[in-house]
Amino acid sequence: MKGDFVQIGSYSYDEYLHVVKSFHGNLAPGLIVGGFIVDLALKNLPPGQYFDAICETSACLPDAVQLLTPCSIGNGWLKIVDMGRFAITLFEKEKGEGIRVYLDPRKLNAWPEFHAWYFKLKTKKEQNLDELMNEIKTAGADVLSMLRVKVKPEHMKKKNLGKTAQCPSCGESYPLSDGDACIACRGFSPYIEG
Amino acid sequence: MKGDFVQIGSYSYDEYLHVVKSFHGNLAPGLIVGGFIVDLALKNLPPGQYFDAICETSACLPDAVQLLTPCSIGNGWLKIVDMGRFAITLFEKEKGEGIRVYLDPRKLNAWPEFHAWYFKLKTKKEQNLDELMNEIKTAGADVLSMLRVKVKPEHMKKKNLGKTAQCPSCGESYPLSDGDACIACRGFSPYIEG
Repeated sequence: MKGDFVQIGSYSYDEYLHVVKSFHGNLAPGLIVGGFIVDLALKNLPPGQYFDAICETSACLPDAVQLLTPCSIGNGWLKIVDMGRFAITLFEKEKGEGIRVYLDPRKLNAWPEFHAWYFKLKTKKEQNLDELMNEIKTAGADVLSMLRVKVKPEHMKKKNLGKTAQCPSCGESYPLSDGDACIACRGFSPYIEG
Repeated sequence: MKGDFVQIGSYSYDEYLHVVKSFHGNLAPGLIVGGFIVDLALKNLPPGQYFDAICETSACLPDAVQLLTPCSIGNGWLKIVDMGRFAITLFEKEKGEGIRVYLDPRKLNAWPEFHAWYFKLKTKKEQNLDELMNEIKTAGADVLSMLRVKVKPEHMKKKNLGKTAQCPSCGESYPLSDGDACIACRGFSPYIEG
């Protein structure tokens, strides 16, 4: 059976589940599908030495990118452009030539539980999680499609902090481009106190 | 010497360097300082069973949170509120009571290379990287300060996709709250083609 020899990136399927659980905290279905998505993109990388990643949703999928590629949110090679679509693009840094991999709704008909999960047709309680996980594993890359894309220049730029200064209010370092004081001291702190 | 028995989270210092290199790609000074920041916050957690994280910069520091806590960008427990400040807050999910840990500029005077790095007083070429890394390790938590904070309710909410629909243009699933079609199909795609 096909599902018996599944590989995700450099991991066996079970190793990948282990890594997901350890990093993400639970075996979210989206992160398992995400593993297949990233794996397929890695196998179809555009030419070039270095690549960045765009993730089109902030839910689950960014962690698959972080676990299976050198791109992370902290090193800036992974960017989240949140459009709520379950897709990622890996693109070559210089020219922006990329491969977009997405969960293809037209390919989901053969997998009822998977289809219901993707289109949110069932509540979590109504889901048959075992069956869903089984369909995800067995379907593997069969439910994915690829598209060659070219990334717009404004999404290729590496964000640069620019000049920094000492905030006259809190005394911490902040990007001078933010104004006379840091964003927090100008009233946009996420804290009620402090 | 103090620096000989440094522990970061559940890692020895050298183990942490190894994990950083593997996940982040390089031994960024910010991620080493970040390790001490997260470690100090973990040791001073507010009461409660579950906590989320706020990271006040998108550079480097989010990866320290992801490596040392259960919070990741994909599971939504790590939120980046980018104010360009080198600080994180771990806060209890229900009441929002948190501990903010930050690199304290008043404590950096004893560490010239560290001070110059934090305030960007030297170019990368002018930096003495060995000395910088040595000062970071030896200083450890001595250059950090803590603050009890309370997180504003709007930053405590878990983002919810809400109802989804099939985009009439690309056919993929998208959040209905985004409008009649998905953001990409309404002209805000990050790609020139596709």
